[in-house]
Amino acid sequence: MDWSEEKIIQYMRNTFPAGNVTSVIGIGDDCAVFPKNEDESWLATTDAMIEGVHFLRLEMPPKDLGFKLVSVNVSDVASMGGTPNHMFLSMALPEDLDLEWFEAFIRGVKHGCEVYGVALLGGDTVRSMRDLFFNVMVLGSVKTSDLKLRHAARPGDHVFVTGPLGHAAAGLKSLQLGCFEDEGAICRQQFTKPCAHMEKGAWLGAQTGVHAMMDISDGLLRDARRLAKASGVGIQIDLDHLYISDELKKECKRFGWDPVELALTGGEDYVLLLTVNPAMVNHLEGAYLKEFSEPLRHIGTILEGEKGLKLVKNGRAFESPYLEFDHFIS
Amino acid sequence: MDWSEEKIIQYMRNTFPAGNVTSVIGIGDDCAVFPKNEDESWLATTDAMIEGVHFLRLEMPPKDLGFKLVSVNVSDVASMGGTPNHMFLSMALPEDLDLEWFEAFIRGVKHGCEVYGVALLGGDTVRSMRDLFFNVMVLGSVKTSDLKLRHAARPGDHVFVTGPLGHAAAGLKSLQLGCFEDEGAICRQQFTKPCAHMEKGAWLGAQTGVHAMMDISDGLLRDARRLAKASGVGIQIDLDHLYISDELKKECKRFGWDPVELALTGGEDYVLLLTVNPAMVNHLEGAYLKEFSEPLRHIGTILEGEKGLKLVKNGRAFESPYLEFDHFIS
Repeated sequence: MDWSEEKIIQYMRNTFPAGNVTSVIGIGDDCAVFPKNEDESWLATTDAMIEGVHFLRLEMPPKDLGFKLVSVNVSDVASMGGTPNHMFLSMALPEDLDLEWFEAFIRGVKHGCEVYGVALLGGDTVRSMRDLFFNVMVLGSVKTSDLKLRHAARPGDHVFVTGPLGHAAAGLKSLQLGCFEDEGAICRQQFTKPCAHMEKGAWLGAQTGVHAMMDISDGLLRDARRLAKASGVGIQIDLDHLYISDELKKECKRFGWDPVELALTGGEDYVLLLTVNPAMVNHLEGAYLKEFSEPLRHIGTILEGEKGLKLVKNGRAFESPYLEFDHFIS
Repeated sequence: MDWSEEKIIQYMRNTFPAGNVTSVIGIGDDCAVFPKNEDESWLATTDAMIEGVHFLRLEMPPKDLGFKLVSVNVSDVASMGGTPNHMFLSMALPEDLDLEWFEAFIRGVKHGCEVYGVALLGGDTVRSMRDLFFNVMVLGSVKTSDLKLRHAARPGDHVFVTGPLGHAAAGLKSLQLGCFEDEGAICRQQFTKPCAHMEKGAWLGAQTGVHAMMDISDGLLRDARRLAKASGVGIQIDLDHLYISDELKKECKRFGWDPVELALTGGEDYVLLLTVNPAMVNHLEGAYLKEFSEPLRHIGTILEGEKGLKLVKNGRAFESPYLEFDHFIS
């Protein structure tokens, strides 16, 4: 079966159209949305993590893995302007699993629940023949008027991100090289113990100037393309404005990597990608800086028409030589 | 890691107490329960199915597997008196998966959604290194006054089931012997394509005479013991009244199996187990027969005090010589 993740999502969306259910948004956004009460909606998201694909049992500290599993789900709720409430955890555990590993993993899950204010209400525990498998489902809620969707970008919108790009990819690469010293710890931590931008998501959800929003889990190129496609617009990313942190620059210099490649293609950064009404940009930038003591990072513009993704460098079109991140194709 | 499923559930319940969340029932019942509106509650349940543990890719028709995955989740909603609304499906797919297999599996999921009136709203698709892994989460709803819990059994209650016991176990055993002829098809179908007792569950939920209810997924002995423990009572099963169908008798005669053993220990029957106020038994039996054109099956009584499970045969205590079903210990 050689379908890409994109093709599978499209197939599922065609097979299970949500159109027959009133006021429900189904497959395709970060979360499914359905009514909670007159003013609020439920947000539902689910993410699986498989041994050998998303983590290696002996290389990822189990407590970090537990925390990360909560973070990646909560991030989807944050990306739609909501806050998380309830969580469900399914686990397939092989017989050879070390009990200390399991207990540390659960401590990480519990820590994540505490940090994000989520209550674990249930789940399923089964045996696995070989690989560990975890699935988390998070239910969150959002004031329906604050709900942000990825299909709401409009031509002329400015494009922003809420944090540094490429950290997780650099962190993974340095871990694979066996690096554990202080240098580069910030990048590695983004890979092993990412934090969902929950407060930023809820705050941005409440801003009318914000049009579309999603989180970047599969790399800026892929996710920006998805946002543009869902909105029926094009998206331009200005490489001169790409947010590349000093930490990433240092790591790239140390190992001879290309920081632009990591920032564009690296997965698992879990920062928010959003588009903003141009008339509201100045106000929003100021208010964001005041609220979070750090700037919202301007990285591009929304273009008219279904033009896909356009990269610009020094004012000229730039052909991406980079291979994009795909969880699904190794 | 040699913990039983029971021990893991207990560990999770201690680690994640739901007590700090208002009007929420967490880990331990068939579904988690949280408020929907003034009159209704949400029911949330999740079940995982792993290749090599719950099914063999080449032996279970993929369409049946897809349908079964929906049924086992919907059954948990039915067992609390509710009806299912939304579904979420996570899939970990290995590269060597046959496309036709996948499409047939999805057809089965879709058929299940149609039969039970559930809308698939989202999920996650990831790669797996080797084994197939599926996780389904179903959200249902119930009039809060109709909600049935497993801890509500009271001494003197009569114990009933809504369908035949041991069919799925006999079906699995005959499949393992390579039998595919018409004889025994009813039992085999209970294993490959079980139907959740959704209408019965919703109807029984609305009856005030019904005290406790749950579905039997891990065999009568284990699940009756769980119901008794949750309610702080004992449960007596009368082997003379055990509901053993003619189909099961025939299959057992054909292969030399013990029908009582299969009825007591066989998993995956997905019939409902319920306890009824003795003053309401006559009325309920009559109304049920009228509604479903088949009798509610009386199999035992609730005893005072935490006495666990007691088996009675010809009026005398009977020591179970049977090994109980545990998904978790092979």
